[in-house]
Amino acid sequence: MKYIDLRSDTVTWPTLEMRQAMARAEVGDDGYGDDPTVNRLEKMAAEKLGKEAALFVPSGTMGNQLAIFTHIQRGEEVITAEDNHIVMHEAGAAAVIAGAQLRCLKADKGRVDLCELERTIRKTHEVPKTGLICLENAHSSGVVHDLDYMRRVKEIADRHQVPIHLDGARIFNAAACLRVDAAEIAAYADSVMFCLSKGLCAPVGSILAGTADFIRRARPKRKIMGGSMRQAGVLAAAGIIALEKMTLRLHEDHERAVQLASLLSRIPGVETALEDVHINMVFIRFRCPVDTDALMQRLKSNGILANPPEDGVMRLVTHYYIDSDMVKKVADVFRNALEQ
Amino acid sequence: MKYIDLRSDTVTWPTLEMRQAMARAEVGDDGYGDDPTVNRLEKMAAEKLGKEAALFVPSGTMGNQLAIFTHIQRGEEVITAEDNHIVMHEAGAAAVIAGAQLRCLKADKGRVDLCELERTIRKTHEVPKTGLICLENAHSSGVVHDLDYMRRVKEIADRHQVPIHLDGARIFNAAACLRVDAAEIAAYADSVMFCLSKGLCAPVGSILAGTADFIRRARPKRKIMGGSMRQAGVLAAAGIIALEKMTLRLHEDHERAVQLASLLSRIPGVETALEDVHINMVFIRFRCPVDTDALMQRLKSNGILANPPEDGVMRLVTHYYIDSDMVKKVADVFRNALEQ
Amino acid sequence: MKYIDLRSDTVTWPTLEMRQAMARAEVGDDGYGDDPTVNRLEKMAAEKLGKEAALFVPSGTMGNQLAIFTHIQRGEEVITAEDNHIVMHEAGAAAVIAGAQLRCLKADKGRVDLCELERTIRKTHEVPKTGLICLENAHSSGVVHDLDYMRRVKEIADRHQVPIHLDGARIFNAAACLRVDAAEIAAYADSVMFCLSKGLCAPVGSILAGTADFIRRARPKRKIMGGSMRQAGVLAAAGIIALEKMTLRLHEDHERAVQLASLLSRIPGVETALEDVHINMVFIRFRCPVDTDALMQRLKSNGILANPPEDGVMRLVTHYYIDSDMVKKVADVFRNALEQ
Amino acid sequence: MKYIDLRSDTVTWPTLEMRQAMARAEVGDDGYGDDPTVNRLEKMAAEKLGKEAALFVPSGTMGNQLAIFTHIQRGEEVITAEDNHIVMHEAGAAAVIAGAQLRCLKADKGRVDLCELERTIRKTHEVPKTGLICLENAHSSGVVHDLDYMRRVKEIADRHQVPIHLDGARIFNAAACLRVDAAEIAAYADSVMFCLSKGLCAPVGSILAGTADFIRRARPKRKIMGGSMRQAGVLAAAGIIALEKMTLRLHEDHERAVQLASLLSRIPGVETALEDVHINMVFIRFRCPVDTDALMQRLKSNGILANPPEDGVMRLVTHYYIDSDMVKKVADVFRNALEQ
Repeated sequence: MKYIDLRSDTVTWPTLEMRQAMARAEVGDDGYGDDPTVNRLEKMAAEKLGKEAALFVPSGTMGNQLAIFTHIQRGEEVITAEDNHIVMHEAGAAAVIAGAQLRCLKADKGRVDLCELERTIRKTHEVPKTGLICLENAHSSGVVHDLDYMRRVKEIADRHQVPIHLDGARIFNAAACLRVDAAEIAAYADSVMFCLSKGLCAPVGSILAGTADFIRRARPKRKIMGGSMRQAGVLAAAGIIALEKMTLRLHEDHERAVQLASLLSRIPGVETALEDVHINMVFIRFRCPVDTDALMQRLKSNGILANPPEDGVMRLVTHYYIDSDMVKKVADVFRNALEQ
Repeated sequence: MKYIDLRSDTVTWPTLEMRQAMARAEVGDDGYGDDPTVNRLEKMAAEKLGKEAALFVPSGTMGNQLAIFTHIQRGEEVITAEDNHIVMHEAGAAAVIAGAQLRCLKADKGRVDLCELERTIRKTHEVPKTGLICLENAHSSGVVHDLDYMRRVKEIADRHQVPIHLDGARIFNAAACLRVDAAEIAAYADSVMFCLSKGLCAPVGSILAGTADFIRRARPKRKIMGGSMRQAGVLAAAGIIALEKMTLRLHEDHERAVQLASLLSRIPGVETALEDVHINMVFIRFRCPVDTDALMQRLKSNGILANPPEDGVMRLVTHYYIDSDMVKKVADVFRNALEQ
Repeated sequence: MKYIDLRSDTVTWPTLEMRQAMARAEVGDDGYGDDPTVNRLEKMAAEKLGKEAALFVPSGTMGNQLAIFTHIQRGEEVITAEDNHIVMHEAGAAAVIAGAQLRCLKADKGRVDLCELERTIRKTHEVPKTGLICLENAHSSGVVHDLDYMRRVKEIADRHQVPIHLDGARIFNAAACLRVDAAEIAAYADSVMFCLSKGLCAPVGSILAGTADFIRRARPKRKIMGGSMRQAGVLAAAGIIALEKMTLRLHEDHERAVQLASLLSRIPGVETALEDVHINMVFIRFRCPVDTDALMQRLKSNGILANPPEDGVMRLVTHYYIDSDMVKKVADVFRNALEQ
Repeated sequence: MKYIDLRSDTVTWPTLEMRQAMARAEVGDDGYGDDPTVNRLEKMAAEKLGKEAALFVPSGTMGNQLAIFTHIQRGEEVITAEDNHIVMHEAGAAAVIAGAQLRCLKADKGRVDLCELERTIRKTHEVPKTGLICLENAHSSGVVHDLDYMRRVKEIADRHQVPIHLDGARIFNAAACLRVDAAEIAAYADSVMFCLSKGLCAPVGSILAGTADFIRRARPKRKIMGGSMRQAGVLAAAGIIALEKMTLRLHEDHERAVQLASLLSRIPGVETALEDVHINMVFIRFRCPVDTDALMQRLKSNGILANPPEDGVMRLVTHYYIDSDMVKKVADVFRNALEQ
């Protein structure tokens, strides 16, 4: 049985077209800069983001950590929302790889108080120096920060000459939500990482983009991290389709998410903040205690995969392989499970 | 002219008795464990804190960072109040030396919300692991956390089997304020650092204390940090006097601080939170904008050294070399300067 | 024009069968342990090497560095031949990622004096501790160390309870040369890395193998390094063919290398140590100074790619896409170029 | 009983004059740059070495590691003789603190083959970059490298634009041996560390010297390492005497070492390379196996402390507290112990 898999958009498998492209991909040894498909993807990605250059890396974590590693000197400080992916889900890598001190700020879904942000930036003579500000948009909590917020962060950063890295793992979801080009969002950052997997369905790979000089300095550091691959064109071929075609349809996933949130919100005992469904993620909270094991079991026996609630909150993620009928089925199963 | 130096208690010079003790100190090569005075100080310090063992280090920063380095594995997370010394004033060392990710929590003078603290501790399967909780008491903002707060943090830490390190740079000030033995405070932590310099007037040196096994593991790591010294007994001799005698008189500095705060609070335009004067630090805020340069100049020409205000707040620190008359003089100079 | 590419076996592109397998590969999110093809490759690779478990990583450098990161504690020492890949070609990663001190030993093509090796191992009380010995077989200089050498290193390591990591990027070439199973070589090491790319022609990926506990501990560290991928099964599908089929034919590449060495050695002015052609690499030295630019130009215009000589030595590498006729053509072009 | 302590010159205790100077030292908070005695010592040390600036640090290990930390970027390579102190006796710190890859060269008492040195320097495009060459003179094996060797290393380093750090822990011993000013030796290095303890008898402290810019950059890194101290003037006061007076008498220790070597060499069964007694260290080897425990016991019961032989070699070190009569007594005790 094929599951309706709502655990994440990272579970998406490559499309048939991607598989065919991978099978046909023209490749070379990227260690020698010889892989034409990688080169094409990097060029295309840089253009999409309005940056001078880009680099293909095997994961989003590597892209973010490579950015930190390249931006800062060992011992400098990185200001970040306390709930950003680099704090929560990157295995403590910033201290290990870059030797960076994370300075977490109190945040609401990745959004920090801008006065506090500015106050936290170290003055010139201080040690450690503030070496980087990290943003995340769309945020992994499912919300999208508006361009005005991005712009104001950029103004603060510029005032103190601190660069900005944007964890744009789902930047194209953010762009679809804001109805702008991804480059408009990326314009507020010095470097940007985005994932070709996740909602874009490529099997493996992310992109780090920035100035030509930044990417030139990132390249040998990617090698230190073990991220230099050989005939990576097989992956880049799928990435090109992800970038060209899949970016155009993300609004469909968002519509499914709204559909799912609406249906679930009508179930007694289920709370969902409809106004926070910006992209392909729905978060629900149960008004009363729920037998989690029974619920998870019920979902699974109905062919639905989901991560169990954490601290009473359950995340459901739509993607290319979730259609409208599946959404209805999911809502039905929830209703039956919870109404008993 | 001898200045009235209110910049910090770190400016204290050794007492005559300390100087004589340094001149007479029996010494040996601490690299071979041969320095009898260092050995005596380490034993005495461990006893004072109710710990099994202790280690002499050249600075408080080294003591704290060595503690982190010894407690955690590279890549683990350290939970800390955002305004603790290890975040603000240790040069980003935790990432460089220990490879530790700092997880800063919103805090009020070193005090964090205990629910949030508990929520922030990572669950067993998570990566990175929560490897340490860092407390600071007395806090460098001048306030002392009560034993109940310490106890509740310890209960949370124990529940999740996370060790606690206490930055007790001024633990004897905290003990004087709480009218308890330092060991009563130290009991809520697995390791403790305190400074023999600062209010205790020794010229150089701090102590890291903990279990015998912890100190055994810290010793070679102190060498990695370059903190193993030779005939350190000359410093330890001053440290012994600091520990035996100077710890008994810190309440006098606290009384001077209260005296200073009271006098300053009567000056129109000066705000000071008298209830927050727990130890030897007074923080004042000016109700109206003040010509900082002129004020600093006026102080200096009257023989008073102080750090200029940061964000409108000025810190004044009392210590062994500040007597009651000096406090009055300082208040007078402020009054004259501000009333013009 | 399709080049005869002798720069390295890393230039090999995937076979048609691999491409088809990639296109058909059953995949899942390896972040959830859900990718059946990755799981199958890891199981198969562990078995081939006689180890309990294995882990798929995006590059050989990541495999080696992850091994060091997992074996040692920060600050420990790694003994290695001075000309091993981890010293020469991994971008200084061991210090950055693992915090490991490399202790390079004088070596002849990766082979060290065994008395010196034993003498270099630190005694129990010393700091730093010797945490790992690194071997490389086949060595990147093209020679294969015999099993007796491996066994004697293992005896020394066991005597001092130091684990061994084997950089077996080309372990199947070594096995073909020694006419043994790869597992017989791997038996002399606690962990082994080998590449699915290089002579085995998979586009991307390497394997780290060891005990189940070692791999369990390596997994979160792979995440720190950014090496956890999503639907990596597309790559693993090619890796399975590399492992099942391509390992059986490496002796053909070795025969081509011997053929090439023989032909080149008959050209006046060219020296080649035929007895050192153990695998798919030929090293030639010119008796008299050669116009390198002209030679490289001549090769290229004849459709031959090679790396220019370093310190007067030129390396030529055979692989799946170099057949006997191409070898003859290469020799002819060299003869014509050098006899003028 | 006062021992005749030949274990090292690190066992020397401060002279009476030093103790008096420490007791009288004018001090201040070096954290504010306020310690006049530290400032004076740093100025004086820089002048003695012919460098622009200098920094006081608590140990030789910190001085060397701070130099590496300041010279290189994380991930760069440091070329060093395999038997230098930074490899053998600094606890693996270079990888932990600076993230530096040590590239050890085969060496004879710290002296490397200069062709090999030059060959080892990485070419411009290589990764990692060669960031530093480390020399040690006098070498901890007791030999002094002549100025011509230093000069030739410098020429190679200059040719490839690689800076040189000199571990001159005993540079004044080297200067006494070569009958030159220490500055003549230091001239061949970009940065120099020397110890005020060891033969110069100060209780604690070392100096790192270099250009003004280098020292300016080293200062915050010293803080990361925990090496910033407060009223360090108490130590610097002893250091000033070490530098002014004790440097003038080191030849006496060397003469005692020659005397000791001569006497011991006349004992049957004892080998000593008289021509290698350059400074205050004598190395002896026993022709036949010796009952080490009995020998050490015999020495101790006669009031003599020495480190036991390692690999059959015993090191004896003379210093300020070893006079000619003691040397004779030591030789007698050895003779009696070995002739039985």
